[in-house]
Amino acid sequence: MGKSYDALKTRLGEIQSIGQAGAVLGWDQRVYMPPKGAEARARQSSILAKLGHEMFVSPVTRDLLAAAEGEKAEFAEDSDELAMLRVARRDFDKSTKVPTSLIVEMTEVCTLGEEVWTKARRDNDYKTFAPWLDRILGLKRQYAKAIGYQKRMYDALLDDFEEGMTADLLDPLFESLKSVTIPLVAAIVARAGRVDDDFLGQECEERLQEEFGRRVLKECGYDFARGRLDRAAHPFCTHFSINDVRITTRYNRTWMTESLFGCLHEMGHAFYEMNGKPEYEGTVLSGGVSLGVHESQSRLWENLVGRSRVFWEHYYPELQKVFAQQFRRIELEAFYRAINRVTPSLIRTEADEVTYNLHIILRYEMENELLEGKLSVADAPAAWNAKMKGYLGIVPPNDADGILQDIHWSGGGIGYFPTYTLGNILGVQWMEKAREALPSLDQELRAGKFTGLYEWLRKNIHQHGRKYPPGELVRRVTGRPLTIEPYVNYLRKKFGEIYGVTA
Amino acid sequence: MGKSYDALKTRLGEIQSIGQAGAVLGWDQRVYMPPKGAEARARQSSILAKLGHEMFVSPVTRDLLAAAEGEKAEFAEDSDELAMLRVARRDFDKSTKVPTSLIVEMTEVCTLGEEVWTKARRDNDYKTFAPWLDRILGLKRQYAKAIGYQKRMYDALLDDFEEGMTADLLDPLFESLKSVTIPLVAAIVARAGRVDDDFLGQECEERLQEEFGRRVLKECGYDFARGRLDRAAHPFCTHFSINDVRITTRYNRTWMTESLFGCLHEMGHAFYEMNGKPEYEGTVLSGGVSLGVHESQSRLWENLVGRSRVFWEHYYPELQKVFAQQFRRIELEAFYRAINRVTPSLIRTEADEVTYNLHIILRYEMENELLEGKLSVADAPAAWNAKMKGYLGIVPPNDADGILQDIHWSGGGIGYFPTYTLGNILGVQWMEKAREALPSLDQELRAGKFTGLYEWLRKNIHQHGRKYPPGELVRRVTGRPLTIEPYVNYLRKKFGEIYGVTA
Repeated sequence: MGKSYDALKTRLGEIQSIGQAGAVLGWDQRVYMPPKGAEARARQSSILAKLGHEMFVSPVTRDLLAAAEGEKAEFAEDSDELAMLRVARRDFDKSTKVPTSLIVEMTEVCTLGEEVWTKARRDNDYKTFAPWLDRILGLKRQYAKAIGYQKRMYDALLDDFEEGMTADLLDPLFESLKSVTIPLVAAIVARAGRVDDDFLGQECEERLQEEFGRRVLKECGYDFARGRLDRAAHPFCTHFSINDVRITTRYNRTWMTESLFGCLHEMGHAFYEMNGKPEYEGTVLSGGVSLGVHESQSRLWENLVGRSRVFWEHYYPELQKVFAQQFRRIELEAFYRAINRVTPSLIRTEADEVTYNLHIILRYEMENELLEGKLSVADAPAAWNAKMKGYLGIVPPNDADGILQDIHWSGGGIGYFPTYTLGNILGVQWMEKAREALPSLDQELRAGKFTGLYEWLRKNIHQHGRKYPPGELVRRVTGRPLTIEPYVNYLRKKFGEIYGVTA
Repeated sequence: MGKSYDALKTRLGEIQSIGQAGAVLGWDQRVYMPPKGAEARARQSSILAKLGHEMFVSPVTRDLLAAAEGEKAEFAEDSDELAMLRVARRDFDKSTKVPTSLIVEMTEVCTLGEEVWTKARRDNDYKTFAPWLDRILGLKRQYAKAIGYQKRMYDALLDDFEEGMTADLLDPLFESLKSVTIPLVAAIVARAGRVDDDFLGQECEERLQEEFGRRVLKECGYDFARGRLDRAAHPFCTHFSINDVRITTRYNRTWMTESLFGCLHEMGHAFYEMNGKPEYEGTVLSGGVSLGVHESQSRLWENLVGRSRVFWEHYYPELQKVFAQQFRRIELEAFYRAINRVTPSLIRTEADEVTYNLHIILRYEMENELLEGKLSVADAPAAWNAKMKGYLGIVPPNDADGILQDIHWSGGGIGYFPTYTLGNILGVQWMEKAREALPSLDQELRAGKFTGLYEWLRKNIHQHGRKYPPGELVRRVTGRPLTIEPYVNYLRKKFGEIYGVTA
């Protein structure tokens, strides 16, 4: 029974191991590799990527997949086997639909594009980057055509990161989010004086920050026998199996919350990877199902838990013990407000919970217009600045802090940004459901007990890996599709209360 | 010109990159991998090893190699190209002469053998290990036959680690070394009271040990932009390119010299890998030519430099500053003697410069007798103990500290041990030659200046990578073959002086 299926599974397992080996190389490169090791590392990473890709798109895999699909009748409905065949087919078709010549050109242009962008950003010189953005958009259009899409070109790109999501589904979601957030931000700006976070700028020894972060990670459930915490310039989470899921953070001596929220964010990603069903290990069903669902896990722990009052009712006295001189005279309530301060700012990665989505929506709208030729690359900086003015009330003084700030477009990452906001929305949808299932959740969090929430996430989301597409997962867990209301209510309630705004 | 040659070079370069990727996985496993990551790591390492091996022994490589050999006339005598073809042919024939079934059986038996050995050593139970040693010896005999040898079976095994070396060459070398060392050790034992090293057991903070080690590494010429120093249970050096050569050491709070000599030893290995000709990078000529020559580099820095009086004339005052309380009352001469204390001991890895080779010769003799059936596996422990008594005057109280102490045999590493002593011998031969070329070498070392020696080694040994077989390298550099006299004179002079012995 399922002989071809088993052979396919073995082959896909080997391909996955090659990918995991590549991930080890990537982790080392960003965490411990000596500077001059980069050149050889590029060769090593690229040969592994090439071998894995060749094995995957080869006729051997194609034939095994077809043969295994012929055994479908042997498997039960909703079985893991059928899910694996579905996901393998999706991955295979995606990998084979695009002509190799286009993949090679995209890789080359995006590699050079990133280099050009790095210099352009440094020199605040959009003009040298513009022709590269133009080329990248052209290639992305070709890519979208090769992949295929029903209505909007954007959908083909989005689907790489968020299966089944479309621009037609996102448009009303984002419109509704704008209609709530833009006035909320304006009202908050008028009452900016209510929240002061200057005291977060006090110097805190890095070693103590790290110790505190490790302690919180452990108490939340992060298993150091199956992971590590290291330092990186840009914090990330990576995994080489469900039993080796590593996170990184960065330390700012004069902004101690940065390292801690970095830990909590990456921990959320890590829990997702650590808690897949063990039997999915080495199969296409292992790992997170989409970037949006992944981000919902990181945002849930960073913001919905880590920036909640109940969390700090437990941890603030502990923090005051560790950094007594810095915080003993600061009340819990002042600390809670400080870590939730809202202020329009130029840089997406530094934005707070409320303004963050406006940065995303701006990018999403521009990506659509650029792709569909409604906006020219030459006019893009002005469009960026106009949107910044309209949504956040501020205008970048230069392109380096405006349209040139993100690496994504230069590397071909178009269609990626919306997943950040999808993560924010979904996180609140999960949390609403978790609260229903765990009536004493807030009391638990207030007591520093995270097992209930950890287990609920594991059981309802993490264990399924890629078995259900994101839309189906949301419906299975929450009983309805992706919905903006819980998120909007959350923002209104939390920040309305902090700033004394009734929206 | 050389079209097939170029294609071969590209292919071998890709295979080397896969091997380097595997080495990154190995480094991570021994340095930073969380404990539960081991199972998946084994899968990842094994698929890389499999892919690299398959690519190497494939008909594609075979045909390219043959075609490139057809272009030999295009290359000059003593050219890198001809050397590459020679080394590639050697590696290819070695990899293809042995039937796959034998390789698979050896891998399986040795993997299990290591497990059995680990338990047997822990339980001091030679009997459970004996049948495995018997099987391993049987497989090694088959291997030697497949590889082929002219006179002694041992030669086929030895050649894997030390090209061109044979038992017939080693026998007189080792006999002569025994005839000098055994009486020297006996004379030293009679005067053991002349050297006291108790004060080395004083507690020294690990952080300061590490700082001191890093400083010495840097001053000797180790480039941290092309390497790293980390911790490992068993210190090692590994490399992923000439620009990423990493070392590890271990810290003993109550024996501070352990971490420092660990650093110097691995640094010697690292220099060899870091200083190959850049144009050999990615080719079969990159890297060290043999284990013996490699070990000559580590021993040279650890013992001939690091345990010399001139080295400590410079560094001892510095060490006294760092560990003032521990060493300010200890004279340089007492410190110098302490780090050169000679005492017969049971465990090879803890042995001093003089007794070390007797541990090796014992193993070498037993390996030959076991392979050739002159000694039975059942009688081996008694033979071991008798040799210990004869060479070092001590008898292990149990097999765990006797015949079961080393991992090598259980993993199939038979023929490996002699390279340690070859390294000792060669190190002195190089050093003698370097002193001729650099008349002020001792003054430089006394002043903490290492550039002269570093450059001499780079130019004469390191840069050549695998271009010249070990025997040829020795002749090119020293003008004569591998010779025992300089080493024997070195031992007599250095330890005769320390212990007041005239041998």
